[in-house]
Amino acid sequence: MLEKIRPTAPELERTYGLASELIAAVNESGIAEGMMVGSVARRTCIRGDLDLDIFMLFPPTRSREDLEEKGIDLARQIAQRFSAPSREKYAEHPYLNATVRGIDVDLVPCFKVADASGIISAVDRTPFHTRYVSGRIDAMTDDVLLAKQFAKAGGVYGSDQMTEGFSGYLCEILVLEYGGFSGLMSAASRWKPGVTIDLEGHQARQFTDPLIVIDPVDPCRNVAASVSLTRMLEFSDLASGYLEAPSEAFFFPPDPSSFSRDDLAEMLGRRGTTLYAVTFATPPFIEDIVVPQLRKSTDAIADLLARNGFIVNRVSHAMGRDRCILFFELLTDLLPPVRRHTGPPVSNRENTARFIEKYIDPSAPGLLAGPFIEGGVYIVELTRRHRRAGDLLMSDDVLKVGLGKHVRRAMEDTYEVLFGTDCWSPDFSREIGAFIHKESPLVKVKRLPNRESIAPDGTWPEK
Amino acid sequence: MLEKIRPTAPELERTYGLASELIAAVNESGIAEGMMVGSVARRTCIRGDLDLDIFMLFPPTRSREDLEEKGIDLARQIAQRFSAPSREKYAEHPYLNATVRGIDVDLVPCFKVADASGIISAVDRTPFHTRYVSGRIDAMTDDVLLAKQFAKAGGVYGSDQMTEGFSGYLCEILVLEYGGFSGLMSAASRWKPGVTIDLEGHQARQFTDPLIVIDPVDPCRNVAASVSLTRMLEFSDLASGYLEAPSEAFFFPPDPSSFSRDDLAEMLGRRGTTLYAVTFATPPFIEDIVVPQLRKSTDAIADLLARNGFIVNRVSHAMGRDRCILFFELLTDLLPPVRRHTGPPVSNRENTARFIEKYIDPSAPGLLAGPFIEGGVYIVELTRRHRRAGDLLMSDDVLKVGLGKHVRRAMEDTYEVLFGTDCWSPDFSREIGAFIHKESPLVKVKRLPNRESIAPDGTWPEK
Repeated sequence: MLEKIRPTAPELERTYGLASELIAAVNESGIAEGMMVGSVARRTCIRGDLDLDIFMLFPPTRSREDLEEKGIDLARQIAQRFSAPSREKYAEHPYLNATVRGIDVDLVPCFKVADASGIISAVDRTPFHTRYVSGRIDAMTDDVLLAKQFAKAGGVYGSDQMTEGFSGYLCEILVLEYGGFSGLMSAASRWKPGVTIDLEGHQARQFTDPLIVIDPVDPCRNVAASVSLTRMLEFSDLASGYLEAPSEAFFFPPDPSSFSRDDLAEMLGRRGTTLYAVTFATPPFIEDIVVPQLRKSTDAIADLLARNGFIVNRVSHAMGRDRCILFFELLTDLLPPVRRHTGPPVSNRENTARFIEKYIDPSAPGLLAGPFIEGGVYIVELTRRHRRAGDLLMSDDVLKVGLGKHVRRAMEDTYEVLFGTDCWSPDFSREIGAFIHKESPLVKVKRLPNRESIAPDGTWPEK
Repeated sequence: MLEKIRPTAPELERTYGLASELIAAVNESGIAEGMMVGSVARRTCIRGDLDLDIFMLFPPTRSREDLEEKGIDLARQIAQRFSAPSREKYAEHPYLNATVRGIDVDLVPCFKVADASGIISAVDRTPFHTRYVSGRIDAMTDDVLLAKQFAKAGGVYGSDQMTEGFSGYLCEILVLEYGGFSGLMSAASRWKPGVTIDLEGHQARQFTDPLIVIDPVDPCRNVAASVSLTRMLEFSDLASGYLEAPSEAFFFPPDPSSFSRDDLAEMLGRRGTTLYAVTFATPPFIEDIVVPQLRKSTDAIADLLARNGFIVNRVSHAMGRDRCILFFELLTDLLPPVRRHTGPPVSNRENTARFIEKYIDPSAPGLLAGPFIEGGVYIVELTRRHRRAGDLLMSDDVLKVGLGKHVRRAMEDTYEVLFGTDCWSPDFSREIGAFIHKESPLVKVKRLPNRESIAPDGTWPEK
């Protein structure tokens, strides 16, 4: 198993060689100190995934503006020296992403602070992570590789907003805490929401996240803050299934099968549900900004549908390079004309009088029944403005709900409402497949044919 | 106004004459003491509604069984002496209802206890009510007549289980408390749920009812216990409307217009809803036993519909002599095949393993999607057993919900499910009309044409 995921010797040699050259180049500048961080530095990188993170540590006496300007300048000079194509990117600070001799390199400026509690920018913490892990992980490097590959294969690897899963650093901390991959599996299979892990025993803040892993270099930070309840429980569930019947499938699942427009038609036919999608141009911001807004917008529109009487079964969202898409699967698409409109409590005489006055004429526009008293309040039944969910989605009401700022701007410009099999497109075929054909990662593994057994520590059983 | 509701002199004379004769007959028996109670005794009866209540007070030294036997014997002898046709009826005790010279008479045995706190049966309290009110109400008899007629016209008069409204005794207490009909109107228009009235200032128990009126003869009893929140607020609402624009319509509404099968067809067409009715033979018990069971059954079946995904807009129930009927108006009648089935929390590993095992085969019967994790629990999507509400109503599931005992027995015998305009029948045309054409009593009054103005104290304004 490990043979398949350990980086190859030539791969490592090439990467470390380049790293030394880049660090030397940073040091030569005289204004910053070069340092390799990330999984390559900690030798916990997986084969084929040896991206280099080179940090440029500036003295903390500089101003933030100065750091940003000088940092990106230095990064550009270095990329030029290596004739590497590069592009500026943004996290909290701007940084440079370059492709040097076929290797993906991030050149990131940061402040060299004395200890992790004194950080100025979030990236300043990264060198501390590398130093902390490097000194302790050596004997468990293979365990980290297994843990990361296990999380990757299960679809729970990555602390980005779309995945809401486990970062590489988090995998390392968990392996340290539980003394290896097997220990992690046993412990994770028993996780309950709210479980707290504190390697250094120095927690200095309370968290309400489902998984709480106190950062060994910062007692006020939860390393697992980005892990959603579902991702945490999927990991726990996978660990439990793995302990019960370990197999290679937990590390190398087959490629996901494709999901065609016909597949969608067949599934919708069997389910009898109504599928809508809302699509619009992807806002020009990074994924970690846009994706939370997609989630918020999806929930807000689902609320709008529910408030209008439509029964929402499932929702999802996806961000593509050009287009974003929000999915809504409904149990009811067409509702009868009548809808309830709740008025004031009867004992509020002033508002009640106004409410009655408004609807006293039996031929008042849209009035179908009432006003009548029920549950302490006055109620009327009025005609529904949008009997079909699609009409509601195409109405201005959608732009009035709590969409994220950039999503609102994009949708105000223009958006499209798709229906049924038209929700399918080649760009989102995988996402729509996963949405309609929903199953937990463990169930996915368990449904694979011919799963070969391996030992629970990830090695092949001795025969 | 009062001229129309005060009993006529001959009417009173005839009734009091008969009362004296009946009391004499009881006294002659030597085993009990006769007493006239009720609204006739208190001179708060309304024209045309002069039913006589003659109580037969036995010494409390007798046993309950003895009272019941001797009481009904004596009543039968008296009815025979007056050649009056009679029928035995049951409240807490058996009593005799007779028609003497065209007057409806109840002959009720009870214990003559020393004070109201020492009562043995609920009817023993009635003589105390009569004694309490008789001594105090004289100057406000007309106010009571107005209050009762106002409640009657508004459809909130009667403490029976179907009405859940205001009893005659309650109207009397309210008039005493507020010093007349005008005072009652002002106070009631400001009622909020939980308002407490305690004429004697001797409340000795807490109540959670919407309207709390401590019985002047029993500090532990709420005279308004049977008043529902809706009836209380309808009374309050009517009072408020009356103060704003007093009119005869608050006392004499026109006869309710009839509601035909065509009317129902037209209303359902406009509303676009689906109407179902469940009917069965009326259980052989009194209204106060059966009606609460109808209410309970209606709510339980509405819950069943909602749990199965159908959106219930309104429900109602009615008890006829031969048949009972439960109405269900739905926004959705047909649902898609898919339904959610929630499994155990993921962190309960044992149950989770069993749940996954049950549904791991993708061709498991009825499985449409999943198992997947959402909100901390495992979920599967299965095919729905009853896609149409009517099929659910006709299934055995209906007999498994919390129906009242007698309703269950009747429905287990046989019941019918009606759909759409077939829910209409001549026997329940008024009930179905009120159900579909729902409006509060005040709105009903306000919508009457040509309402003539009168003074707020119920008299015609001087011209």
